[in-house]
Amino acid sequence: MEFQDRDITSIEDFTRQEIAYILNKAKTMEPLAAKGSDILKGKILANIFFEPSTRTRLSFESAMLKLGGNNIGFADVESASVKKGENLADTIRTVENYADIIALRHPLEGAAKLAAEFAKIPVINAGSGAEEHPTQALVDLYTIQKERQKIDGLKVAVVGDLRYGRTVHSLAYALSLYDVELTLVSPETLRMRREVLRAIQSKISVTETQNLEKTIPQADVLYVTRIQKERFPDQAEYAKVKGTYRIDLKSLANAKKDLVILHPLPRVDEISAEVDSTPQARYFQQVWNGIVVRMALLGLLLGAVK
Amino acid sequence: MEFQDRDITSIEDFTRQEIAYILNKAKTMEPLAAKGSDILKGKILANIFFEPSTRTRLSFESAMLKLGGNNIGFADVESASVKKGENLADTIRTVENYADIIALRHPLEGAAKLAAEFAKIPVINAGSGAEEHPTQALVDLYTIQKERQKIDGLKVAVVGDLRYGRTVHSLAYALSLYDVELTLVSPETLRMRREVLRAIQSKISVTETQNLEKTIPQADVLYVTRIQKERFPDQAEYAKVKGTYRIDLKSLANAKKDLVILHPLPRVDEISAEVDSTPQARYFQQVWNGIVVRMALLGLLLGAVK
Amino acid sequence: MEFQDRDITSIEDFTRQEIAYILNKAKTMEPLAAKGSDILKGKILANIFFEPSTRTRLSFESAMLKLGGNNIGFADVESASVKKGENLADTIRTVENYADIIALRHPLEGAAKLAAEFAKIPVINAGSGAEEHPTQALVDLYTIQKERQKIDGLKVAVVGDLRYGRTVHSLAYALSLYDVELTLVSPETLRMRREVLRAIQSKISVTETQNLEKTIPQADVLYVTRIQKERFPDQAEYAKVKGTYRIDLKSLANAKKDLVILHPLPRVDEISAEVDSTPQARYFQQVWNGIVVRMALLGLLLGAVK
Repeated sequence: MEFQDRDITSIEDFTRQEIAYILNKAKTMEPLAAKGSDILKGKILANIFFEPSTRTRLSFESAMLKLGGNNIGFADVESASVKKGENLADTIRTVENYADIIALRHPLEGAAKLAAEFAKIPVINAGSGAEEHPTQALVDLYTIQKERQKIDGLKVAVVGDLRYGRTVHSLAYALSLYDVELTLVSPETLRMRREVLRAIQSKISVTETQNLEKTIPQADVLYVTRIQKERFPDQAEYAKVKGTYRIDLKSLANAKKDLVILHPLPRVDEISAEVDSTPQARYFQQVWNGIVVRMALLGLLLGAVK
Repeated sequence: MEFQDRDITSIEDFTRQEIAYILNKAKTMEPLAAKGSDILKGKILANIFFEPSTRTRLSFESAMLKLGGNNIGFADVESASVKKGENLADTIRTVENYADIIALRHPLEGAAKLAAEFAKIPVINAGSGAEEHPTQALVDLYTIQKERQKIDGLKVAVVGDLRYGRTVHSLAYALSLYDVELTLVSPETLRMRREVLRAIQSKISVTETQNLEKTIPQADVLYVTRIQKERFPDQAEYAKVKGTYRIDLKSLANAKKDLVILHPLPRVDEISAEVDSTPQARYFQQVWNGIVVRMALLGLLLGAVK
Repeated sequence: MEFQDRDITSIEDFTRQEIAYILNKAKTMEPLAAKGSDILKGKILANIFFEPSTRTRLSFESAMLKLGGNNIGFADVESASVKKGENLADTIRTVENYADIIALRHPLEGAAKLAAEFAKIPVINAGSGAEEHPTQALVDLYTIQKERQKIDGLKVAVVGDLRYGRTVHSLAYALSLYDVELTLVSPETLRMRREVLRAIQSKISVTETQNLEKTIPQADVLYVTRIQKERFPDQAEYAKVKGTYRIDLKSLANAKKDLVILHPLPRVDEISAEVDSTPQARYFQQVWNGIVVRMALLGLLLGAVK
């Protein structure tokens, strides 16, 4: 299986076999993540972030450092030449001279694909508009498999903003490669995008609902995402929805004992703090898993992990 | 004496014996600061700065690099997930996965203590509101001891904004562990906080005054801090105070020859540029000392320095 | 020839012999730029950028990493102590404690010279106001020599904003050390600065013109720069000029086959995208050359390259 010099613009770039390969490699990164290593010594990752991000950027930077590599980049358009009106293709053809691999976060859909076309070095999509966040989907799969020793056969409920949340789009595509039952829980206005639904419905069982309460007791995995205020023209509507999709101890009363609760973070208040200490809460472990998955990807794309 | 895995949230976390130990270790860091070393190879410091800072952040980053470690972090809330409404506890429980130790600057008092409670890795307070700046106090003590070969027996005058200046709070606590005579020089509205005064008055001789002119000739150490315009509702009052607490060659005419003038920097105009070339001026040497003290702390907390 | 501990504030700091030496050293950096090296292990470059920049900052950072060194700094005044009113001399006397060498970008002319006077460590001017950008001029010379195996005897046309564009000022000084014919093409309001013209006219043949069309067929090197909208009080005037100085396939119809088109980037639309795939376009190769030239400079100034 060949990963060297490939781009990762969409989770759809991968077959199920390739994903399994990546998750296995991620597992072998766990000891290196704890102790550090030198396998990417001399390599440079350019983190080109056109949108604010703490965790994805720091996760990539940490992964690179733990492999012995180094980072350059910008986290903020204000301090970049982009302010002078440069287009993305020029930025990429410039930055590729400074680095061995690029992680790109961009507000526009299609940005990662455009960058990958222009770049002579591998480009990893670190989030493109509301479209995709493929490395997060791999982290999610890795976490599910680590927690439940399998993905096939599970009932996965995805809750929140399924329309604008890029992580859930990538996750839905990824889960459609497995034998899972997927329940999509969202307010009417934030239902899963048509094109994603169409693509996955032919492959797996998908149920759409607005009823979180009835969904929780059935779920093996509960994937919660943030509902953003600014998506609602009517703030009264927002207030109502916000209360309905909040996870607390009460809403988990009938949950399975081995339920796995995930969240791509940052969280605002869609999961109550009291849930953090339940055995089902796995969203901070998910952050650690983000490091090992990204270590595996960086190693594979740069040819240092086979 | 055990430092590994401890937090540094307040200078009051340390006994006098522990401070002496740290200052001794800092001295052994001087050659490593000049040549570099590998004792923290593979370790990562997360510099989480919720407020602008050049010198503290760069000082920590430089200290980490000189020990062979690496840095990640953010210097600016604009480029961080915090903008999305994440709380500090979540940020900490995320960042602890990416790094081995955290340096935290935050505008709110109590932030460092909260972070230390949530973090599984050591947290160093790099400035919390107007409250404390414990590593700066250690740098100040190190500088005094390096310049005067002792701390006991000295007359220390602290000048400027004693109400909102966090460095002077930590320094006052630290000096109260030694046999010093402390003179606090400030305008009435910027007098030392009550709770700090109460805590130190039982231990050392403390004099409050508004008269800088009479204070200088007695002092062995003159610690000058910035008086911030925005602290004064009445700008006429500010203009008056600003002139009164400005150090220039004239105000130093009757100073001791071996006076040590310190300043945590940045300076605006509370010390005139003409003072920079006097033998008493030690505030830029103080910056270098900041590196070696922080090297010692990073090494001790990560268990690489014993 | 001695470079260790020198500053680079202006291209005029160098003789022709010294420039030749630097360009030769840059050539020896090409394999190190591709594979990485350890010759600056333990050294720290402080990138002090008071103005936004992607490429110069990332170029310096990448060069330092490829030599095994590390970087600290700020890219943005918002996150720096400068906001608190610190002057440049103090910033420099602080930062010199954290690093072994400084790269400074500043909006004011003379900033680099001032910094070099105060700093005990080498200072490299990474762009000072509209005045100078000496490392870019070295990159330009290196690129011309790499592409044409010589600089003497060439006809060089420099197009665009010759008044405010700092790169063209440094380049003009640099070219005046060689036996070149220089044509300066600009709108009337953006003609080359008087003091630069005077300095170079005594050394080389200089022609000023507003006619790009007649200039192109003669040129061996076409150096294009951005014309900034904000330089024109009259936007109608800007619109006219902008169209006149745009390079596209049509304007290159009568160009020499071995013409070398350069641009310091970022580009807005003064070179049409269709030109990118012509053999004459060398502006992205120029970016790579920026790394090797800066590697040579860092190595020479820090005494690791002889």
